[in-house]
Amino acid sequence: MKKWIICLFTSLSLTTLSAQTPAKVRAYRQQHEQTLLQEYLRFLSIPNILLDTTTDVRQNAFFIRDLMKRMNIPVQLLELDGKTPPVVFGDVKVPGATQTLLFYAHYDGQPTNPAKWAQGTAPFKPVLATNSIENGGKILSEAETKGKLSPDYRIIARSATDDKAGVFAILSAYEALLKSGIKPTYNLKFFFEGEEENGSQHLGDYLTKYKNLLNGDCWIFCDGPVHQSGNKSIVFGCRGDINVEITTYGPRRPLHSGHYGNWAPNPALRLAKLLSSMKDDSGRVVIKGFYDDVTPLSDSEKKAIAAIPPVENEVRKELGIGQTDGAGKTLAELINEPSLNINGIVSAGVGAQAANVIPSTAVATLDLRVVAGNDPVKQVQKLIDHVKAQGYYVTDQEPTQEELLNHPLVARVKPLKGYRAQRTPLDLPIAQKVVKAVQSTTQDPVVIFPSLGGSLPLYLFSDILRQQAIITVPIANYDSNQHGENENIRLQNLWDGIESMASIMTM
Amino acid sequence: MKKWIICLFTSLSLTTLSAQTPAKVRAYRQQHEQTLLQEYLRFLSIPNILLDTTTDVRQNAFFIRDLMKRMNIPVQLLELDGKTPPVVFGDVKVPGATQTLLFYAHYDGQPTNPAKWAQGTAPFKPVLATNSIENGGKILSEAETKGKLSPDYRIIARSATDDKAGVFAILSAYEALLKSGIKPTYNLKFFFEGEEENGSQHLGDYLTKYKNLLNGDCWIFCDGPVHQSGNKSIVFGCRGDINVEITTYGPRRPLHSGHYGNWAPNPALRLAKLLSSMKDDSGRVVIKGFYDDVTPLSDSEKKAIAAIPPVENEVRKELGIGQTDGAGKTLAELINEPSLNINGIVSAGVGAQAANVIPSTAVATLDLRVVAGNDPVKQVQKLIDHVKAQGYYVTDQEPTQEELLNHPLVARVKPLKGYRAQRTPLDLPIAQKVVKAVQSTTQDPVVIFPSLGGSLPLYLFSDILRQQAIITVPIANYDSNQHGENENIRLQNLWDGIESMASIMTM
Repeated sequence: MKKWIICLFTSLSLTTLSAQTPAKVRAYRQQHEQTLLQEYLRFLSIPNILLDTTTDVRQNAFFIRDLMKRMNIPVQLLELDGKTPPVVFGDVKVPGATQTLLFYAHYDGQPTNPAKWAQGTAPFKPVLATNSIENGGKILSEAETKGKLSPDYRIIARSATDDKAGVFAILSAYEALLKSGIKPTYNLKFFFEGEEENGSQHLGDYLTKYKNLLNGDCWIFCDGPVHQSGNKSIVFGCRGDINVEITTYGPRRPLHSGHYGNWAPNPALRLAKLLSSMKDDSGRVVIKGFYDDVTPLSDSEKKAIAAIPPVENEVRKELGIGQTDGAGKTLAELINEPSLNINGIVSAGVGAQAANVIPSTAVATLDLRVVAGNDPVKQVQKLIDHVKAQGYYVTDQEPTQEELLNHPLVARVKPLKGYRAQRTPLDLPIAQKVVKAVQSTTQDPVVIFPSLGGSLPLYLFSDILRQQAIITVPIANYDSNQHGENENIRLQNLWDGIESMASIMTM
Repeated sequence: MKKWIICLFTSLSLTTLSAQTPAKVRAYRQQHEQTLLQEYLRFLSIPNILLDTTTDVRQNAFFIRDLMKRMNIPVQLLELDGKTPPVVFGDVKVPGATQTLLFYAHYDGQPTNPAKWAQGTAPFKPVLATNSIENGGKILSEAETKGKLSPDYRIIARSATDDKAGVFAILSAYEALLKSGIKPTYNLKFFFEGEEENGSQHLGDYLTKYKNLLNGDCWIFCDGPVHQSGNKSIVFGCRGDINVEITTYGPRRPLHSGHYGNWAPNPALRLAKLLSSMKDDSGRVVIKGFYDDVTPLSDSEKKAIAAIPPVENEVRKELGIGQTDGAGKTLAELINEPSLNINGIVSAGVGAQAANVIPSTAVATLDLRVVAGNDPVKQVQKLIDHVKAQGYYVTDQEPTQEELLNHPLVARVKPLKGYRAQRTPLDLPIAQKVVKAVQSTTQDPVVIFPSLGGSLPLYLFSDILRQQAIITVPIANYDSNQHGENENIRLQNLWDGIESMASIMTM
């Protein structure tokens, strides 16, 4: 900390010229495509799987630190215990700027099985291809990548999208501004995490320990794919999530289904009836008060949801779904509601594992997505009350023999980990500025998501840092195979990402 | 076949003295307990696990053949292909006898893990103990077994009950009669199978190939345990059984439950609703016509069922069952009805295998027990019709993408192996004779089961041999750990078994 010197963004020749930013940044990128590409390929060559003990994930942090040093960004590695991958943190003070933007991305990647990657590709030997492997892309020789780069080319490597693309787009945007003589209109902070794919287990600790460094006015997250239409997208929140495990009980040990069938109760049937009682045939949850507590969507949010291009029909066909849930509501509407989903059910075995038994227990794991306004603990309590209303004695522990004997129906309901939703009001002035900035880089309408359907621990930022504005600007192509084999980023998406980030920095 | 000589039971000194049989046989046994015990221990020392390729199961057949030779029983090994364990077949013609009894038992045993047996015991090193290991039995030294044998002693070894006890009791009964000068009142045939624990896969082939040898008037099966009360028991049939696998479908591949929850249908919920629709809360099947076709129980059968000593309360307590199915009917009544039981359900994973997904499929395996009068195929058709009535398109194949898209609800219903029930009318004169014979050996009321709850392929005997009278006379103690570790037979049960078999041979 002592050696870390704040370096001010003082070049007087820089101009604040946000209206011209996209064009200038584009010109810069077009002139430096090969340099940018080669630098990104070097970054992608560094293995970054936290759970692979043979990998030194820190090498990625060092690479980013060196990149930032080259850009004269004051940078330090924030450490917790010397073992957890460090946060690479940069802090750029811009003269005249009164507000601060904080940029988040992560440099670690999902575990991967190299054997599953297509011939010619490997997680940490990045190559270019004419398209994604799944779309029939042909891998390009090194010579072929030296000439003009098609916007549809893909870079194939682990984390090509998730989320080194985020780190690279943010820093390249900054460098493009710097080299183009455009001064950011905000102070800028950079926060690059190294254990997002392992559940960001220490994110809260980092935010708490380094709270004083992290004051600012708006977080910009660069992670995830854009809308399936390919249009640029902005996400203003995410659902929270809490898992619950429900167990029902039959006989203490599996019984011969011949000798005891019709007499000994079947826990799988009990669980089936219990789960069935929770939702109607359209998938609507019928647990009492399940949709209460929800913060109503504002008019702008409703308008944004209505404007999200529909994808249902294509997705439905691709996935072989004859009838969807939701009684005619759109996917975009439905992911703004709380949900109750069965992640899995297991009772004894099926197929080759089937035996003619009355099983002893049946277990279901549920996930309850929650939206703004919902308290996950309260949401689980509604579920527990519902189970009780079905005649069950409910415990969160393994029931004793006495409990099993004294109650006609016994269920164990065990809440697992969970957290609440986060939603940045779309009407915040700074939120509107981000929308305008991203829209200024494209002719196509930007897709605005008031909330993701999925969950991220964004609540940590509002809880620990007391910051309200947390906005995600994803850049990856939809067909990027994020988390899968042959992960790829479409070149144009990377270039577009640089423009979006630069526009936000000068908005 | 050519070398096989029919030997007639011609000793003129023999008397037909059925009323005195039990006392005489008991006296003989009491005099020869040590000899009988040592012979049985030798039999139990021969490994008999068909699925253990290091074991020569045929050694058991040879042992039985030699035993029968010693008793002057004309014996042959019935072969199919030289690989399948042979049936040891004996045929004793009794002068003056007009009817023939056929005795069935099997000499192979369940696979076992020697490591799981209690210290001092092993599957094929039979020992005696003061009680079952589970009841605190103490293993006896060889010296301790040379004196008077307590009736409560247990012989511990694989197949001590299931079913070498059957083979040994039948043959010892015959020898006891022979040595006591009592002439059987029936011609006697012995049929000892060697692959019962592997599903009697060739039993039908044996019955077909050797049909001409197997004519007779009544089969006596000696297998299984007596009633939990310890009273002698006779079983007149068994339920049939057919398995069915039901699969419901969600999206073609598991989906992120955040991005698609509330919209993509959950196959586990669909399956839960489908299974729930099949039974009411008391466990009664509500599928249309499910209880039709059942051959009504005769008055004697109803009377027998009512006389079966109740065991429900003890079993319920042992198994931690707070509430049983069946709306107050007894276990004995309920196993005489068709059943529908969920053997297992699996959809994605739970516990450590749980992921926040909407699973792709959900599978349940059911077993439908059938009773006299039920056709298993028709019973499955009722199930299929029920699934259709819930709005499902039903196929027995993996559905195509087109089928999935064209129907709101798709289920695969795949019937697996199954067969029908068998029930010997209790009112048959020969059935009544068997009851009387067994009752003559004991002061306690014999427990009469019109049907077992479980299933055996007894239908093969009535289908192939066109024989109607198939009666099971089990002898093993209820706590014999049949199929499990430390399998044991209580000595008195073995001795009682010999008396029962001898009484039947002279009834």
